[in-house]
Amino acid sequence: MSMDVTFLGTGAAYPSPTRGASALVLRCEGQFSNGTYTGRERLASGDQAGRITKIFITHLHGDHFFGLPGLLCTISLQSGSMVTKQPIEIYGPAGLRDFIWQTMELSHTELVFPYVVHELVPTADQCPTEELKESVHVNKADNPPKDGQGRTIVLDSEENSHLLVDDEQFVVKAFRLFHRIPSFGFSVVEKKRPGKLNAQKLKDLGVPPGPAYGKLKNGISVVLENGVTISPQDVLKKPIVGRKICILGDCSGVVDDGGVKLCFEADLLIHEATLDDTQMDKAKEHGHSTPHMAAAFAKLCQAKRLVLTHFSQRYKPVALAREGETDGIVELKKQAESVLDLQEVTLAEDFMVIGIPIKK
Amino acid sequence: MSMDVTFLGTGAAYPSPTRGASALVLRCEGQFSNGTYTGRERLASGDQAGRITKIFITHLHGDHFFGLPGLLCTISLQSGSMVTKQPIEIYGPAGLRDFIWQTMELSHTELVFPYVVHELVPTADQCPTEELKESVHVNKADNPPKDGQGRTIVLDSEENSHLLVDDEQFVVKAFRLFHRIPSFGFSVVEKKRPGKLNAQKLKDLGVPPGPAYGKLKNGISVVLENGVTISPQDVLKKPIVGRKICILGDCSGVVDDGGVKLCFEADLLIHEATLDDTQMDKAKEHGHSTPHMAAAFAKLCQAKRLVLTHFSQRYKPVALAREGETDGIVELKKQAESVLDLQEVTLAEDFMVIGIPIKK
Repeated sequence: MSMDVTFLGTGAAYPSPTRGASALVLRCEGQFSNGTYTGRERLASGDQAGRITKIFITHLHGDHFFGLPGLLCTISLQSGSMVTKQPIEIYGPAGLRDFIWQTMELSHTELVFPYVVHELVPTADQCPTEELKESVHVNKADNPPKDGQGRTIVLDSEENSHLLVDDEQFVVKAFRLFHRIPSFGFSVVEKKRPGKLNAQKLKDLGVPPGPAYGKLKNGISVVLENGVTISPQDVLKKPIVGRKICILGDCSGVVDDGGVKLCFEADLLIHEATLDDTQMDKAKEHGHSTPHMAAAFAKLCQAKRLVLTHFSQRYKPVALAREGETDGIVELKKQAESVLDLQEVTLAEDFMVIGIPIKK
Repeated sequence: MSMDVTFLGTGAAYPSPTRGASALVLRCEGQFSNGTYTGRERLASGDQAGRITKIFITHLHGDHFFGLPGLLCTISLQSGSMVTKQPIEIYGPAGLRDFIWQTMELSHTELVFPYVVHELVPTADQCPTEELKESVHVNKADNPPKDGQGRTIVLDSEENSHLLVDDEQFVVKAFRLFHRIPSFGFSVVEKKRPGKLNAQKLKDLGVPPGPAYGKLKNGISVVLENGVTISPQDVLKKPIVGRKICILGDCSGVVDDGGVKLCFEADLLIHEATLDDTQMDKAKEHGHSTPHMAAAFAKLCQAKRLVLTHFSQRYKPVALAREGETDGIVELKKQAESVLDLQEVTLAEDFMVIGIPIKK
């Protein structure tokens, strides 16, 4: 199953011609699952919005969720006469459900598909005290969800995470980040899949080609004509280990060990780096990270590949960097790599696509 | 004073790579006044958002106002340390104020500038009955505006219009349109300005060059050393007639004669034409217009120049039209021109700029 990440926007705070507001898409073999989404039109205009199945909002700053109502409308317009469509599942911090409901009502929008909004309840340690008060205020205005209107997801205090999705293919959990307002990271873990059939062993054990192959591949034992029972483990190669993709929202760090556990050995770790290391104090003051901070977290998690994104608009993409520039985007790469013992770090750019190959 | 209109988006319903969602900017000598505005990033990314002084929302369909919260944030970020900035005046249908307040609160947005939201109260005849009910429901949820929070503007039933702005330079009025939900058009009329000084007459009357010239130009009489009083009308050329720009929101027509009166002899009339004339029934069903309908209104108003916009995404810009195509955008131009006795009609395209020259 092919998987890749497409960056729709890699800029901080507001969109510019070179970096759109922060958003990415995680595509899983034709199905779209959405990382963070904002006002970017480009996914919407790509005629593929109708294939989105899940949307994850990291936090409720405008550059990370103001585009959501428009995206829902575009999905609706592109869904055509699609019948019996599964509900689109939207996950985000408390307050998101009312925002969507009210916006859809005010605009007289009748979406052709059902959707549910699952709200993550933040905790007090995810932001400075003065910001939390406002946050609680917003939550109080919330209507309690009725049947079919999405879950209210509280912290699992043993695991220090929020369980969002557990289906046939994936487990998605959220972990808490520290930012100006409560922010979350998401860990998407592909489930282990049965290994391929071992042709030599099938032959050695005398399994005849045909339906028996399919059963064994699907984990079902078969009895041969000679009465011998063949178990899947007799003829299957090693299971295929699932991939792990971790995407952090805006933050100046994680709240506890939940994030480190969920991101451990991530195949792809996507972390913000709003400002360069020389501006670490300013970054922290605004609840943001620098390359050093992002790389230190990646190192702690033993992540296999670190991608930096959410750059201040002052950092133009590499192709637009001035020659010999020492305060540009390339410096951010160097700063991160110096922490990771020169392991290569990727700088996200708008419309960059990063494939996540199947594990051997 | 230079004036021009820039189309930020010319597409209906949703943004595409060739036509963004409907929005335009009316620029008046360095000051920005905004026609309709949506999710388009391009104005915002042009480093000029900070110069917007007024924003007009025609109606509360998503493709016409979902971009407003993001625009306000971008204006704020680009306003820098601008002090004592005048409030940005936002005009739109009832329901808009609560939407902006709630969205700003949820996103913890602290704009660096003040703003006021003036709400236009629609009437029952602006949309089909079943849609109006919802509209009333939204209005009921509204908080009454407090001091400094914007006006509630009801119809002037003698003029059949809503008076929005009456300042030194402009009078802006709204008129009612019929659409799926209440929609408005806006008429922007530049005030008459005093004519230039007539050098020959000044000489003939013996007015000495100096401060007297300035006074006369500003409409103040002066007394010469010989005791003769010179009135401004003695030495000023004809006053400079103001320009009139009229911008209609989505509609399948006007509600009454208010629109015709306000658009009479408009220098620039900007009208939607979502579908071509062969689909007039479908257009009307959705509360939209065709080129014939737009041109008939322009003819009734004796408008000097008609610009069509808000095209269904099926109508690609002229540069992308296939040769010999008979169902493309060029057909819409022909359809409108046939109504206007071949007077040239302009097809709006994204980023097209139309200047409105000073009248002779």
